[in-house]
Amino acid sequence: MSDDINQRHRARMERKKAIIDAKIAAADKEIGIIIVNTGNGKGKSSSGFGMAIRAMGHGMKVGVVQFIKGAMQTGEEKFLRRFPEEISFHAMGEGYTWETQNRERDIEKAQLAWEQAKRFLADPAIGLVVFDELNIALKYRYLDVEVVINDLLARPSMQHVVITGRGAPPELIEIADTVTEMNVVKHAFKAGIAAQAGTEW
Amino acid sequence: MSDDINQRHRARMERKKAIIDAKIAAADKEIGIIIVNTGNGKGKSSSGFGMAIRAMGHGMKVGVVQFIKGAMQTGEEKFLRRFPEEISFHAMGEGYTWETQNRERDIEKAQLAWEQAKRFLADPAIGLVVFDELNIALKYRYLDVEVVINDLLARPSMQHVVITGRGAPPELIEIADTVTEMNVVKHAFKAGIAAQAGTEW
Repeated sequence: MSDDINQRHRARMERKKAIIDAKIAAADKEIGIIIVNTGNGKGKSSSGFGMAIRAMGHGMKVGVVQFIKGAMQTGEEKFLRRFPEEISFHAMGEGYTWETQNRERDIEKAQLAWEQAKRFLADPAIGLVVFDELNIALKYRYLDVEVVINDLLARPSMQHVVITGRGAPPELIEIADTVTEMNVVKHAFKAGIAAQAGTEW
Repeated sequence: MSDDINQRHRARMERKKAIIDAKIAAADKEIGIIIVNTGNGKGKSSSGFGMAIRAMGHGMKVGVVQFIKGAMQTGEEKFLRRFPEEISFHAMGEGYTWETQNRERDIEKAQLAWEQAKRFLADPAIGLVVFDELNIALKYRYLDVEVVINDLLARPSMQHVVITGRGAPPELIEIADTVTEMNVVKHAFKAGIAAQAGTEW
């Protein structure tokens, strides 16, 4: 590697550092935020659980409600249930809706899950809540988006919320602080590879 | 909710279930896969760590190498270091390159980190490896993409690999099984909100 390349690299990195430092200085608000992970790609839920352990690493308490999912216990649930003092875990417990095929029952279960969600949203001791697959419950209108948004906005000011699932409604995107769309570039499943423990569930 | 809506919902869900069941039956290969999380949005690393605890929940051992990151200890690192029997954690330890601004030193550190990565890739007892921000090290050419790909393809057949970071090189996307692009829809940082413990690090 020539000295010339190293010097140019250094100059470029110095400019980059100056820009980043200025942005960091300007971004000084500390407040609870709403994060939405949507899109058809992978990583929406796993990112939510990654954020859960991130928060736990900083000594924050975490609450999780799993909407839709729950008939099959996932690896993250098995793992996180080992720490009941740090993370409180609730699953709607009915599996995906195409397994149950009973809309009234799904609605009833979703409403019960939202009651638990509201208990987390009322508790300032919970630093981060994860509402996994809530977007699906909203998409199928198992829950009313206006009710959900009102409850979200009434939470303690320092509490963070992560909401996952494809098809986030526009009203939710509107009030969210950070929204990421996970898009599929390639998926192993299409190449005939099964959903495997450790990567898919 | 009228019976009519419920019946139509049931019929739609039955068709959906038939399609999904057929896809699941067709996807029967069990093999270690390479997952790449790229793009400018949030959730690339947190999804990788979410997959780590998913694997740990299924009793798999996990190896992590953090490329680029490491000057500041993140929440997920603090949390995961509590389980040294289940997850082995290595950080390159130099912070982002615009903090160090020394290309030769970055290259040296990245090469050392890849030596550790190769030890994980040679160990069939490790079910999942996470190479966090490896794409950045490839983008800056701290590591040779051909060398990295050869080492990845030579790993034990049942081992899964998650690679994160913006700007995944096309050669890596080509050999990966599942690739997700995380795209920014909105980011709290742009609204003047600081990078906060528990959500950003």
